[in-house]
Amino acid sequence: GFARVDLHRSRRTGFPEIIFAQGKTPVQTAAIFRRLQASGKPVLATRVTREQADAVQNVTPDVEYDDVARLLRWWPPERPQTMRPGFVAVVCAGTADLPVAEEAAGTAEFLGSPVERVYDVGVAGLHRLIDQLSVLRKANAIIVVAGMEGALPSVVGGLVSAPVVAVPTSVGYGAHLNGLAPLLTMLNSCAAGVAVVNIDNGFGAGYYAALIHRS
Amino acid sequence: GFARVDLHRSRRTGFPEIIFAQGKTPVQTAAIFRRLQASGKPVLATRVTREQADAVQNVTPDVEYDDVARLLRWWPPERPQTMRPGFVAVVCAGTADLPVAEEAAGTAEFLGSPVERVYDVGVAGLHRLIDQLSVLRKANAIIVVAGMEGALPSVVGGLVSAPVVAVPTSVGYGAHLNGLAPLLTMLNSCAAGVAVVNIDNGFGAGYYAALIHRS
Amino acid sequence: GFARVDLHRSRRTGFPEIIFAQGKTPVQTAAIFRRLQASGKPVLATRVTREQADAVQNVTPDVEYDDVARLLRWWPPERPQTMRPGFVAVVCAGTADLPVAEEAAGTAEFLGSPVERVYDVGVAGLHRLIDQLSVLRKANAIIVVAGMEGALPSVVGGLVSAPVVAVPTSVGYGAHLNGLAPLLTMLNSCAAGVAVVNIDNGFGAGYYAALIHRS
Amino acid sequence: GFARVDLHRSRRTGFPEIIFAQGKTPVQTAAIFRRLQASGKPVLATRVTREQADAVQNVTPDVEYDDVARLLRWWPPERPQTMRPGFVAVVCAGTADLPVAEEAAGTAEFLGSPVERVYDVGVAGLHRLIDQLSVLRKANAIIVVAGMEGALPSVVGGLVSAPVVAVPTSVGYGAHLNGLAPLLTMLNSCAAGVAVVNIDNGFGAGYYAALIHRS
Amino acid sequence: GFARVDLHRSRRTGFPEIIFAQGKTPVQTAAIFRRLQASGKPVLATRVTREQADAVQNVTPDVEYDDVARLLRWWPPERPQTMRPGFVAVVCAGTADLPVAEEAAGTAEFLGSPVERVYDVGVAGLHRLIDQLSVLRKANAIIVVAGMEGALPSVVGGLVSAPVVAVPTSVGYGAHLNGLAPLLTMLNSCAAGVAVVNIDNGFGAGYYAALIHRS
Amino acid sequence: GFARVDLHRSRRTGFPEIIFAQGKTPVQTAAIFRRLQASGKPVLATRVTREQADAVQNVTPDVEYDDVARLLRWWPPERPQTMRPGFVAVVCAGTADLPVAEEAAGTAEFLGSPVERVYDVGVAGLHRLIDQLSVLRKANAIIVVAGMEGALPSVVGGLVSAPVVAVPTSVGYGAHLNGLAPLLTMLNSCAAGVAVVNIDNGFGAGYYAALIHRS
Amino acid sequence: GFARVDLHRSRRTGFPEIIFAQGKTPVQTAAIFRRLQASGKPVLATRVTREQADAVQNVTPDVEYDDVARLLRWWPPERPQTMRPGFVAVVCAGTADLPVAEEAAGTAEFLGSPVERVYDVGVAGLHRLIDQLSVLRKANAIIVVAGMEGALPSVVGGLVSAPVVAVPTSVGYGAHLNGLAPLLTMLNSCAAGVAVVNIDNGFGAGYYAALIHRS
Amino acid sequence: GFARVDLHRSRRTGFPEIIFAQGKTPVQTAAIFRRLQASGKPVLATRVTREQADAVQNVTPDVEYDDVARLLRWWPPERPQTMRPGFVAVVCAGTADLPVAEEAAGTAEFLGSPVERVYDVGVAGLHRLIDQLSVLRKANAIIVVAGMEGALPSVVGGLVSAPVVAVPTSVGYGAHLNGLAPLLTMLNSCAAGVAVVNIDNGFGAGYYAALIHRS
Ligand SMILES: Nc1ncnc2c1ncn2[C@@H]1O[C@H](COP(=O)(O)O)[C@@H](O)[C@H]1O
Ligand SMILES: Nc1ncnc2c1ncn2[C@@H]1O[C@H](COP(=O)(O)O)[C@@H](O)[C@H]1O
Ligand SMILES: Nc1ncnc2c1ncn2[C@@H]1O[C@H](COP(=O)(O)O)[C@@H](O)[C@H]1O
Ligand SMILES: Nc1ncnc2c1ncn2[C@@H]1O[C@H](COP(=O)(O)O)[C@@H](O)[C@H]1O
Ligand SMILES: [Mg+2]
Ligand SMILES: [Mg+2]
Ligand SMILES: [Mg+2]
Ligand SMILES: [Mg+2]
Ligand SMILES: [Mg+2]
Ligand SMILES: [Mg+2]
Ligand SMILES: [Mg+2]
Ligand SMILES: [Mg+2]
Repeated sequence: GFARVDLHRSRRTGFPEIIFAQGKTPVQTAAIFRRLQASGKPVLATRVTREQADAVQNVTPDVEYDDVARLLRWWPPERPQTMRPGFVAVVCAGTADLPVAEEAAGTAEFLGSPVERVYDVGVAGLHRLIDQLSVLRKANAIIVVAGMEGALPSVVGGLVSAPVVAVPTSVGYGAHLNGLAPLLTMLNSCAAGVAVVNIDNGFGAGYYAALIHRS
Repeated sequence: GFARVDLHRSRRTGFPEIIFAQGKTPVQTAAIFRRLQASGKPVLATRVTREQADAVQNVTPDVEYDDVARLLRWWPPERPQTMRPGFVAVVCAGTADLPVAEEAAGTAEFLGSPVERVYDVGVAGLHRLIDQLSVLRKANAIIVVAGMEGALPSVVGGLVSAPVVAVPTSVGYGAHLNGLAPLLTMLNSCAAGVAVVNIDNGFGAGYYAALIHRS
Repeated sequence: GFARVDLHRSRRTGFPEIIFAQGKTPVQTAAIFRRLQASGKPVLATRVTREQADAVQNVTPDVEYDDVARLLRWWPPERPQTMRPGFVAVVCAGTADLPVAEEAAGTAEFLGSPVERVYDVGVAGLHRLIDQLSVLRKANAIIVVAGMEGALPSVVGGLVSAPVVAVPTSVGYGAHLNGLAPLLTMLNSCAAGVAVVNIDNGFGAGYYAALIHRS
Repeated sequence: GFARVDLHRSRRTGFPEIIFAQGKTPVQTAAIFRRLQASGKPVLATRVTREQADAVQNVTPDVEYDDVARLLRWWPPERPQTMRPGFVAVVCAGTADLPVAEEAAGTAEFLGSPVERVYDVGVAGLHRLIDQLSVLRKANAIIVVAGMEGALPSVVGGLVSAPVVAVPTSVGYGAHLNGLAPLLTMLNSCAAGVAVVNIDNGFGAGYYAALIHRS
Repeated sequence: GFARVDLHRSRRTGFPEIIFAQGKTPVQTAAIFRRLQASGKPVLATRVTREQADAVQNVTPDVEYDDVARLLRWWPPERPQTMRPGFVAVVCAGTADLPVAEEAAGTAEFLGSPVERVYDVGVAGLHRLIDQLSVLRKANAIIVVAGMEGALPSVVGGLVSAPVVAVPTSVGYGAHLNGLAPLLTMLNSCAAGVAVVNIDNGFGAGYYAALIHRS
Repeated sequence: GFARVDLHRSRRTGFPEIIFAQGKTPVQTAAIFRRLQASGKPVLATRVTREQADAVQNVTPDVEYDDVARLLRWWPPERPQTMRPGFVAVVCAGTADLPVAEEAAGTAEFLGSPVERVYDVGVAGLHRLIDQLSVLRKANAIIVVAGMEGALPSVVGGLVSAPVVAVPTSVGYGAHLNGLAPLLTMLNSCAAGVAVVNIDNGFGAGYYAALIHRS
Repeated sequence: GFARVDLHRSRRTGFPEIIFAQGKTPVQTAAIFRRLQASGKPVLATRVTREQADAVQNVTPDVEYDDVARLLRWWPPERPQTMRPGFVAVVCAGTADLPVAEEAAGTAEFLGSPVERVYDVGVAGLHRLIDQLSVLRKANAIIVVAGMEGALPSVVGGLVSAPVVAVPTSVGYGAHLNGLAPLLTMLNSCAAGVAVVNIDNGFGAGYYAALIHRS
Repeated sequence: GFARVDLHRSRRTGFPEIIFAQGKTPVQTAAIFRRLQASGKPVLATRVTREQADAVQNVTPDVEYDDVARLLRWWPPERPQTMRPGFVAVVCAGTADLPVAEEAAGTAEFLGSPVERVYDVGVAGLHRLIDQLSVLRKANAIIVVAGMEGALPSVVGGLVSAPVVAVPTSVGYGAHLNGLAPLLTMLNSCAAGVAVVNIDNGFGAGYYAALIHRS
């Protein structure tokens, strides 16, 4: 077989293996999806195109596809999703960052963390963020998604006591360098309590926030 | 005054403001240190040179200087340091990364997290890491410090269930680009559960791990 | 002669030529300084080392040297400095950015713009900035100097109606890339009303703000 | 809702919020456009594709679309546009830079600044620029748009007394690096009086020049 | 003619010239392929599109096309392929890296080295690699293909005694920079015994491993 | 008009203005082409697409289009092209570099320099280059076009006495960085007598070689 | 202890662990050196400063220090060094590259491979290389060390049948980027049979060539 | 011997080999200098430090050292330097660029080309350049040396008919990137007739201009 599915991961890390669909053919995606379903645990695939989603949905029923977040999710009928108390906040600066924010939110929910969405609160209009402070201050972990100059995590980081997971996005142009600009911004944050994942890596942020929330 | 010390930070974030001594004169460093002492809370300064440390120690007694970690610490006599149950693990690949690892460890300890050090366990001799797995699996958060190619956080991330805070270091040469190489490695980690701080930012990693541990 | 001093500049641009001392020998610096004095107009030199300043002060009296801003200034006795009504605000995030902020402030003052300094108001403690908002809102132009992640100009830009001149500084480490990180941040600012000058170019920012103020 | 429209911006900055259409769906663009129209103030959207423009024009009449500048503009019937005395000059080096130059010009006009266009005056044929000097010397602010090596702002900056807003464009190839080459050129300008906005950011330059002109 | 085919190469280097089809028209590709066939030795072309393959197969029979590896191969009827004793191992981290791994494997086989494929053994699940150690320890040379953070060659290099040829791939996103991230990782490997070829250069790795195997 | 055609250029530089068609619409290209024809001198346009060529050929007869070099050329009937004695050599490493080499050759010929083409003489098979040495040693100027690692100009530069104009091309992949790799190679050439033009700038090389040849 | 010496490496890889002294204190270096001596196998340390060498030589006799190669070597008295038949060639372009070439040569010799040195044969004077071809053609592996534009490995690679290990050096200036220019050159080599190690990594090249030679 | 001096170069290229002293020890420099003197032709060494110059002057009389240009020159007593008719112009923007300009001028003179120096004519004060136009228009080749934004070669290139050899310098700061900014500017020059050498490579420019002048 072309893939060695890592079924022990759940035992090692406490969370199931998650399929990264990018670069796989629809046929490969469906085959791997089914193999993980056979283990009887919930299955999540990320970066799923409509075409890949169709291939999976054709061979197995009851698989949910979210075309903004590009996530494909399935739960075994006998294992309803249970959620932890508390929540993860997902903060985002602009409309164009929604796919990444939703990938983060959907991933955290899949892993058992309820999510509060705090969207369109960019630093150019600070009052919008200040208005949401009471929500942010109750969160167990905060994911901050931002493109353009990526200043939002620093500002949030200075206002809250929960760990911030910063996600730069590729939304921008010119000296934005496809997300390198906000990535560097976030790595140099003068607020302590900010750690960073890869550009557009909503999945990684959702996973990380759920890990913190679980701990 | 040249500095507006952020005395409210502790109320906002639950941890006191920490002095970043780099780029300050010894006189400025000592003045800010004293102002924070006056608030009656423990004081930490990072990236402190011997010369800055002397300036502080000259004006105030009982300040500890660690010249590997370049940390300066002070506790009010009536407020002994209390530590949380559980611990943060600090993992590091090579001898040359010690100053960054110790900055991380010292910061986490200052913020109330006991630290287990797991040093010199680079990926080129995996058995050394495997031997320490039982310690790593008990940690509440794991800081992984690595220079050269920075592969260690990916390997650790695949073996444990706690969140990994990855710190690239500037230890290397040539195509290492002063730490950009391991920084990119860590941002692209194929193991989920890894978030990254700036090159050589042991302070940021220690702070972040303590935040997770506290949560 | 090794230098063609541009005495017509004042006629063309309304401001005198200003000496960029970096890379000149002390002897060259002094010679050029005297040539400009001979024109009877005020003279400013930037990036002046102590050694260059001594060379100038040895040959001509009444020259002021500011060793934080590294500026050397002289006014003809019969031409006292006159200041415009209104003012330029100089905002800065941290102690280590002072030399650049002072280069900006000193240049603007030399060109006839009074300066209000608003220092140590980094984004990690927003209340410090908010406290100064009434000053910022009265300024004719606002210079914002910031190292680390350089988020301050975006935040200021969203709160005021005057043009913001953003100056990234080389203060930071690691993925800061000697100022490239805050430079990119500022170029990608999601707040309109922000334009950018070179890393550490306090002179350019002071000159530009004075130009706006004069207009 | 997916967007928190910043209706207070006009009160804070004196100019209304402007829609950045890039990355929004046509439906989102139209919804946000209508919400701003409801506030009764003029509305501008930038980076608007033909498809987005159609979506807006379908739901609201009297909206102007300029397909070179990619701007969409609307004025309330009872609030005719009023223009300031004086003008902003928009200078540009080549035919391929027209979209950016027109984005700048259209933005400045929308914000109340009349515009004089001085086009196709690249540095390789200086006499063309020299011929237009009398226009440039009367401008309140000068926008200089240039791709290729981006030398034009330095040359203009040395000849005039108004502030120059420099806009690098992505027009070029090879070592042009999609506009990084002229961006760096402009940031390093040896002429004082030049500030820079992001690559292809005609909007930012038009906004900034109008801010200066208004001041 | 547009091409000087290097028929002496085989005499100089012991291996025939190999056609790099990228950037050639189908007609040029077919012409060069036939010229090499005329020399009576086996012919290999790399980076062959389906369209180029058709052009060759139309003019000459018995040419094999592998559309995953994008290789086109032909052997003279009277010269059956002979294989060396021993083998080259091709190790690869993920499904998306298969085209590069197969280009490497197919090239090595063409040059007379049998290949053992060890696929989908990424560092995030180390036990999968450990399970294959006995194969790796028997190999004469080991090609390790990896995208994402590219940590696999360091881990393999620390476990085996054969030379490792590392191939970074362009599989990844964001801070991956189209393969620069794993390229840098591999160049900085802390395991000795690792040398590197260009991003996605499966051909180069297969050739190099065959050279080592032959020696 | 959108373009100020630089008709004086021929007086200033001795060569006519040449049209850079990239980024112009077909209508703009045709209009500028006709304006230059009206001056009665030969006309050359570079980077011309088939669509732009059609637009020009539709409005004016006798215009030659070369679709490999992407050049469009016209001579006034009464002014036959005259060629200088001596010649420019155009050397090139591989088939995929032909368009750039032909752009260089066609430009030099248009400006009156006969061209000798020495193609497919890459450094991996040095004897092919050595075989052509007698031609190279007679040339007045030598253009060397190379992609991949771009080593050819250094090798040629060490063997001849004429000035070498080096042109890096975007032919390559991976760490080639779209031509930056051979550009850097050529700028660092250890052979004196090599100067460099932009990536893929065959036109600039042809023009420069003709300038040298004319001198 | 601060270091876990990897004594099993010899069993795993067939070569002993080698000390990378850079970044270690003299005391640490000496301690690790002694620990490895205690295992009774030959010991090699690389990147050793004079100060570190003194620290080692003070505590243990009979240790050889080569101050060009910066290598420190020791053999147990009862285990004289034995050399394999055949040899590794070390080729180098210029005098300034000698330290890297000697690090490579000294490492290969330490690991049992005799070395032939072929120095100062840069591509700008090809005849010097051609004169040495008969030596190169007899080598089992060829290390090519080059700074400046780094073209030498491509030229050598096209002339020989042994695998070439290419080492870029930091010798150069300007667009050389501290060795990135020749690194890219070598990675893009159009000659097959070239693999690359890190900038200035003479050790890695010597180790790799010895691995090939041994195989 | 550590160096194979290329005594045939003069026969091949018409100019003698020139010593690049950077990275050589004083002893090596002196040895190579003497070896070239023994051939009876004039000798030039570049990038010579005062210490290297002393070493050479100690062993051989009548060697001239220019400590601005860092050149060391010697002529055989019986072979007085003869100069070609015509001249090379060396143009330079600022005082800090003098060492590079003088390296260029001194090299061209050594190779037989008289030099006219046109210094301190930066683009920020165009009239200074225009005043010198009649000199520039008589030159056989023009070297233009510029740091900061490096716009000067484009402006000169548009005004003259001789080939321009552009030399970027490392004079600048911040986004100047040690000369990469003016290097990119020059490579993207919109004036035809400009070719570029490495950052600070005054030698290369002087050599190239002399080659053109000789042709
Ligand atoms: N080593 C460090 N690296 C980055 N940031 C730091 C470091 N040490 C302290 N800080 C941050 O710097 C802030 C104080 O900066 P300052 O006011 O300049 O002393 C603190 O709030 C910390 O978040
Ligand atoms: N700190 C500075 N950074 C950048 N440019 C400067 C600075 N100080 C002065 N200048 C500019 O440098 C020019 C003078 O350069 P120079 O002729 O080399 O002294 C002046 O016209 C100023 O525009
Ligand atoms: N996929 C590949 N990547 C890099 N080089 C290749 C590849 N395939 C073949 N080559 C090299 O390209 C040379 C032939 O190039 P060409 O003459 O353009 O067909 C051969 O000698 C090989 O060394
Ligand atoms: N300043 C310089 N920059 C670049 N190359 C130089 C320089 N000076 C001399 N060279 C070249 O270096 C070669 C000699 O190098 P070497 O044998 O190391 O002395 C000569 O053939 C010149 O082409
Ligand atoms: Mg997998
Ligand atoms: Mg502070
Ligand atoms: Mg000057
Ligand atoms: Mg908004
Ligand atoms: Mg070929
Ligand atoms: Mg034009
Ligand atoms: Mg070790
Ligand atoms: Mg030499």
